[in-house]
Amino acid sequence: MEMVIKVTKDIDKNMKESINTSEDVKWFDLNNKYLRGLAFNNGFSRLNTSISKNVDYLQRHPSGVNINFQTNAKVIKIKAIVDNSSYMSHMTAIGQIGFDLYLLNNNKFVFISTTKINQKEYTVTLLNNLDDTNKIFRLYFPLYIGVKEAYIGVNLDADFSFFKPEQEKVVIYGTSISQGGCATRPGMSYSNILDRMTNYEYINLGFSGSAHLEEKMAYVLKEIPKKYLILEVEANNTVNSLKERLPRFLEILDGENIILISHFPHPHVLINKDLKNAIDTNYLFQKSFPNVTFIDGRKILKELNYDETVDGTHLTDLGFYFVARFLIDYIK
Amino acid sequence: MEMVIKVTKDIDKNMKESINTSEDVKWFDLNNKYLRGLAFNNGFSRLNTSISKNVDYLQRHPSGVNINFQTNAKVIKIKAIVDNSSYMSHMTAIGQIGFDLYLLNNNKFVFISTTKINQKEYTVTLLNNLDDTNKIFRLYFPLYIGVKEAYIGVNLDADFSFFKPEQEKVVIYGTSISQGGCATRPGMSYSNILDRMTNYEYINLGFSGSAHLEEKMAYVLKEIPKKYLILEVEANNTVNSLKERLPRFLEILDGENIILISHFPHPHVLINKDLKNAIDTNYLFQKSFPNVTFIDGRKILKELNYDETVDGTHLTDLGFYFVARFLIDYIK
Repeated sequence: MEMVIKVTKDIDKNMKESINTSEDVKWFDLNNKYLRGLAFNNGFSRLNTSISKNVDYLQRHPSGVNINFQTNAKVIKIKAIVDNSSYMSHMTAIGQIGFDLYLLNNNKFVFISTTKINQKEYTVTLLNNLDDTNKIFRLYFPLYIGVKEAYIGVNLDADFSFFKPEQEKVVIYGTSISQGGCATRPGMSYSNILDRMTNYEYINLGFSGSAHLEEKMAYVLKEIPKKYLILEVEANNTVNSLKERLPRFLEILDGENIILISHFPHPHVLINKDLKNAIDTNYLFQKSFPNVTFIDGRKILKELNYDETVDGTHLTDLGFYFVARFLIDYIK
Repeated sequence: MEMVIKVTKDIDKNMKESINTSEDVKWFDLNNKYLRGLAFNNGFSRLNTSISKNVDYLQRHPSGVNINFQTNAKVIKIKAIVDNSSYMSHMTAIGQIGFDLYLLNNNKFVFISTTKINQKEYTVTLLNNLDDTNKIFRLYFPLYIGVKEAYIGVNLDADFSFFKPEQEKVVIYGTSISQGGCATRPGMSYSNILDRMTNYEYINLGFSGSAHLEEKMAYVLKEIPKKYLILEVEANNTVNSLKERLPRFLEILDGENIILISHFPHPHVLINKDLKNAIDTNYLFQKSFPNVTFIDGRKILKELNYDETVDGTHLTDLGFYFVARFLIDYIK
């Protein structure tokens, strides 16, 4: 028996919220050893070290976290308790607090369902009426909310198992943009797009309003075994704080394969000379480090003529797709 | 004196809501004869004829409506009263109830500000600290809410005037997708992207959950002078209703330059044979009309491998950008 618990408008059935459902399934706890996208053993949290008040808060947002499972289930549900409902006007509820399900099809993960709901506790039927062949799925976690509990549910007679391939890691350290602000759904942050486009496990250490290049953070990054380290650290630094901190930060990380991305295009350079000068200065400064692969963030999105953000700063799916497509040439 | 009326979190200043402001400006009513994107003289509403309960409701959503103005203002504000705050989990508040401001730069309109707020009545400072040169702007209206009142405000000593160039029209009739579900902000629906990419005025008659091909609607479309008519009408029809209604609809519109777009890719064709068969059948049927330019919607977005939607159906900025970029070759 199923019950619609919240609808938006009856005018468009496709615009309805996801459907809450009864307990005719068995539930599997997602807090387990098969989670991908985590470097430390701390539940759904991304760090186990204190960095700053902001980062300590935001590291509970499981951006980049995901899990693989295989099942012959006819019905797949998700049940989650998160810290809050949607709280930002420039990001969908799904992007902030939702989960995205991808299906492996012809060796590629394809978006197949999401949690179209805006509540802090929800149970959603992701798929039903599936045939009973074995299928492989990947589930992406919310980008901008702490997750208290989360479970995947399948019909009682279904086979089900999580699995986790051994893969080299790519670590991303950055701002709100790297955390995934403002993808329309979790699978569309640039790190999660790269996760599907390349054969690596991505550790997302993007923190909204942060990436302040603390020395302690450099040591945290250093201890994670990785093939590449992507740094997107300009947006919340001033010209001075970047000059002051980036050299020491890179010195601590000497020997790593570092990809350093400068500021993505900001349309306010057209009306704000100070901003333009700061971005130009930061560009030249970041370009100057010899042992770093430098990428001009403005170049990646140039052809989009400033239409790649929701607010001048935060990339949409359009911006993230172009960033990911550009970066795959650097992640061999 | 300015007052922050609502913030999301203090953790990221860029994630804050827009700022509400005091009355140190002069206000210009946006309900005037310079509005673009409207075929009938009915305020911000898109129709003046009753079609169906759904369409009569949705025609009050000013999708595609926009206005040009020029000013040497140092401060630009907007004040609006809309029917509601955000009501959908898969679309940002900005996309549903917000306004987007574009600045003319090198003969192209460039996104420059938006209303980062989620309230049914709001006053937002779009830009400030501008130099006092004359600038040209275009303001896009909300995609998914009725607008009761809206005003643009500039500093008291600024020059200000609306203007409207005479342009041929392109009319779009379609579903929620054509209405703009689910762009992250108003400027990113495919009709509004085309509005900037081509030299036409676009009349958006996309209606969520609708496009049911009523004869009466065909006569409404027929009476609008236009260069092209884009039809995106498959998604809310069944195989049978499309077969039954589309021939008569096209017959009434005989002689028009019609561009007919079939269903955009839907990932559930991978798991739902009935859906796949329906889309395949509808594709062949829509392709069969001799005096119509037919476009396979699946082809437009094929390279995105189903990542172009927020929910399997509704396009994001990524999908809309690819649709617009594809269509410009058909709109000479």
